[in-house]
Amino acid sequence: MPETKVKKTEDFHEWYNEIVELADLCDKRYPIKGMNVWRPYGWKLMRHVDELIRDEMEKTSHQEVCFPLLIPESLFKKEEEHIEGFGSEVYWVTYAGNNQLEERWLLRPTSETAMYPIFSLWIRSHTDLPLKTFQIVNTFRYETKQTRAFIRVREIHFFEAHTCHKDFEDAERQIEEDKEIADRFLKKLCLPYIFSKRPDWDKFAGAFYTISIDVLMPSRRTLQVGSIHQYKDNFARPYGITYETRDGTHSYCHQTTYGMSERLLGAIIGIHGDNKGLILPPDVSPIQVIIIPIIFKGREEEIISECNKIYQKLTEEKIRSHVDSRDITPGNKYYDWELKGVPLRIEIGPKELEKKEIMLVRRDNGEKKLISQNILTSAVKKELSDISTSLYEKAKNFLRENLHRLQTIEEAKEKKGIIELPWCGTEKCATEIENILDSNTLGEPIENIKCENTSCPICGNPAQTWMRYAKTY
Amino acid sequence: MPETKVKKTEDFHEWYNEIVELADLCDKRYPIKGMNVWRPYGWKLMRHVDELIRDEMEKTSHQEVCFPLLIPESLFKKEEEHIEGFGSEVYWVTYAGNNQLEERWLLRPTSETAMYPIFSLWIRSHTDLPLKTFQIVNTFRYETKQTRAFIRVREIHFFEAHTCHKDFEDAERQIEEDKEIADRFLKKLCLPYIFSKRPDWDKFAGAFYTISIDVLMPSRRTLQVGSIHQYKDNFARPYGITYETRDGTHSYCHQTTYGMSERLLGAIIGIHGDNKGLILPPDVSPIQVIIIPIIFKGREEEIISECNKIYQKLTEEKIRSHVDSRDITPGNKYYDWELKGVPLRIEIGPKELEKKEIMLVRRDNGEKKLISQNILTSAVKKELSDISTSLYEKAKNFLRENLHRLQTIEEAKEKKGIIELPWCGTEKCATEIENILDSNTLGEPIENIKCENTSCPICGNPAQTWMRYAKTY
Repeated sequence: MPETKVKKTEDFHEWYNEIVELADLCDKRYPIKGMNVWRPYGWKLMRHVDELIRDEMEKTSHQEVCFPLLIPESLFKKEEEHIEGFGSEVYWVTYAGNNQLEERWLLRPTSETAMYPIFSLWIRSHTDLPLKTFQIVNTFRYETKQTRAFIRVREIHFFEAHTCHKDFEDAERQIEEDKEIADRFLKKLCLPYIFSKRPDWDKFAGAFYTISIDVLMPSRRTLQVGSIHQYKDNFARPYGITYETRDGTHSYCHQTTYGMSERLLGAIIGIHGDNKGLILPPDVSPIQVIIIPIIFKGREEEIISECNKIYQKLTEEKIRSHVDSRDITPGNKYYDWELKGVPLRIEIGPKELEKKEIMLVRRDNGEKKLISQNILTSAVKKELSDISTSLYEKAKNFLRENLHRLQTIEEAKEKKGIIELPWCGTEKCATEIENILDSNTLGEPIENIKCENTSCPICGNPAQTWMRYAKTY
Repeated sequence: MPETKVKKTEDFHEWYNEIVELADLCDKRYPIKGMNVWRPYGWKLMRHVDELIRDEMEKTSHQEVCFPLLIPESLFKKEEEHIEGFGSEVYWVTYAGNNQLEERWLLRPTSETAMYPIFSLWIRSHTDLPLKTFQIVNTFRYETKQTRAFIRVREIHFFEAHTCHKDFEDAERQIEEDKEIADRFLKKLCLPYIFSKRPDWDKFAGAFYTISIDVLMPSRRTLQVGSIHQYKDNFARPYGITYETRDGTHSYCHQTTYGMSERLLGAIIGIHGDNKGLILPPDVSPIQVIIIPIIFKGREEEIISECNKIYQKLTEEKIRSHVDSRDITPGNKYYDWELKGVPLRIEIGPKELEKKEIMLVRRDNGEKKLISQNILTSAVKKELSDISTSLYEKAKNFLRENLHRLQTIEEAKEKKGIIELPWCGTEKCATEIENILDSNTLGEPIENIKCENTSCPICGNPAQTWMRYAKTY
């Protein structure tokens, strides 16, 4: 048992830094800063998250591919804005063995420039469209800011969907689908979020527009967990992605991308955890139900055998469970599995055995419930679903309480969290507000929220729209 | 439909090079030689192979981890033989953005030198042993020889298990388990193999001994698909992997590794395929049963609905199937799915509908079988299992016919395939035989095969053991 543990409620960042290692998610002692080792428990959790997104991709007819990691410099440089945006953040391979390469290769920071030359070969005719692909790979960015496990790292576990369409409107429909995917997927992770359309000067390098997906961490700073990009034909032109239309002419494709990263884990850890450790959403928890035998002398066999029976029944219903039969006290076992965030605990002792009952204990609120053996699987399913709902609702309330639609800088200075202020539409005023509030521009709400009769708190001109500001990770 | 296709029976290598692209496994047009794009069908196949090895790992209590791709030069250089063996084959990252790195980092060619410094932190006491881990990642080797899809590439999809043990004997037990895993796993891929203990001068850089796992390709050249290494404490010493024993002293761990790569796909493609295309082992085929409606006017709906019913029933039994409802002729569909190697085809036309029957067609031998609707799933399961057995047996016979235990060089010159000759134990004689036969040393059979009364065909001294030679990939 670890000796000390910082309390989440006292020092969130210290708690976060400690919990990712205590709960066996990752090891930060690898000798390259920001490149961490995925430990078995963390990797399992990440893989469950990956499987959920794979399910969503399958349902929406995206096909999984895997493109090379290394990108020749000349390919990378074809789209000017892209290289400007990423050039200073990439790692360069210059030697193979003792031979200097004729052309430098970079480690993908994202895969547009690896994929699009090949897309231009795959797409010939309008019947090849839409092309909907995705991959789950590691990407690399040379972060100079302070690193933080899962949140700011240099080797990033990354999901990226890339689609090609016959025109702008079809690409827009893809973005609608992407938003629906985010909604279903993030609900399963119990993560409420906001979509913001990034301001022009801070969109993805090469994009026509960017929608960021942000969650609110307990520190009241936002964490961008994903983004959706409309590229129009900005990449199709330099990479020559054209198709033959029905009437025999040639057109450029319109493209979208959709990215999410291991930051999702950062959000899960930060938003749901408590002083005792992680609280994992049931849909992705490597173990959903931990079964703990409360051994009494003379009845060991009976109790263990009952635990194994429960394990069998849950496994048949595809509920991931585990019997902890280690030779340590039940209290120590509770401690361990609470730390690791297993959403539901089952305790089986002599009392339960006699009455043919089972004790269920919820990780999120500590609630205990005695149920009859014969409703085991239905009761467990209901508890897991209730835990999922509670985690989501709790986070949703926190987000709601910390999203402030205001009119003046003075009001804004009083608030923590996400601030929405009327905006005249100029970079200058947004930047000034950023400075005053010591925060970052998130972007406009994508829902059309009325801003008539409001004016920019800086220049006083009539507002075009609302703009969001927050301290960010 | 592609216009031309080389016949496997006429030019195996050309057939292989063509089929990997025609069957949508990979795209070789990526601008870095030997770094290919995994297309959706190829990636699905690879993922099914990965899942089988994951199952084996889970059954044998190995835990999945994921270590960083990049390794600092100083870590890499701690084990002398290792750096000698790999030094000329690695890619070096020297710049991050515009900044030259203080220390060069290399892309992992294999992960010993990334993992072992961390293992030395994870292992404290004998209770931490054995430590059994694995990861499935891409690795990188600067190949200068001619590349070939899945067989000789520069970015390699790789499985690597790494274990630590209290002593040599426990590591030896691990190697026994590894051999059992190979046996179960490769049986599912319908791949017969031989284990050979590599000669000392050609073992893995840093290993105490290496067992290679080779299959025999139709060209009668062997393909090494995997290897098992006993490291003894060769790495534990430089990386300081020690543990406290029961009596309080400290000992070095003994280690093993087990590696297999995407070459498994190369073996599946090469060994099972025929002139019509791939033939995939049912256990890993992305689609196990392709259902083809034989549409007759006026009965379209009935036939499609029957196909969908069959799809449903198979899906419930976890048999991966797909209804091909494209608007092209059945003949074209047969062609496509034969090319892609789907092991079993179901045809449903008006005749089948009337008689409540189903036509099953095997990909491997073209056999057709009419079965009654009500035995659908059991019949399909039996056919898939029979196909798996046939593929294995056919390959096994080919391997048996081409493994020659001989006494003299003259006999050996007459034979193609794998040659076993008596060996005196010296590198000099083995090398001479290699030269004479224009082939490579594979290693000794790991089964103890009697070699009394035989002598080395080069020096005439009494043989210590048998030695295998073959042309290799």
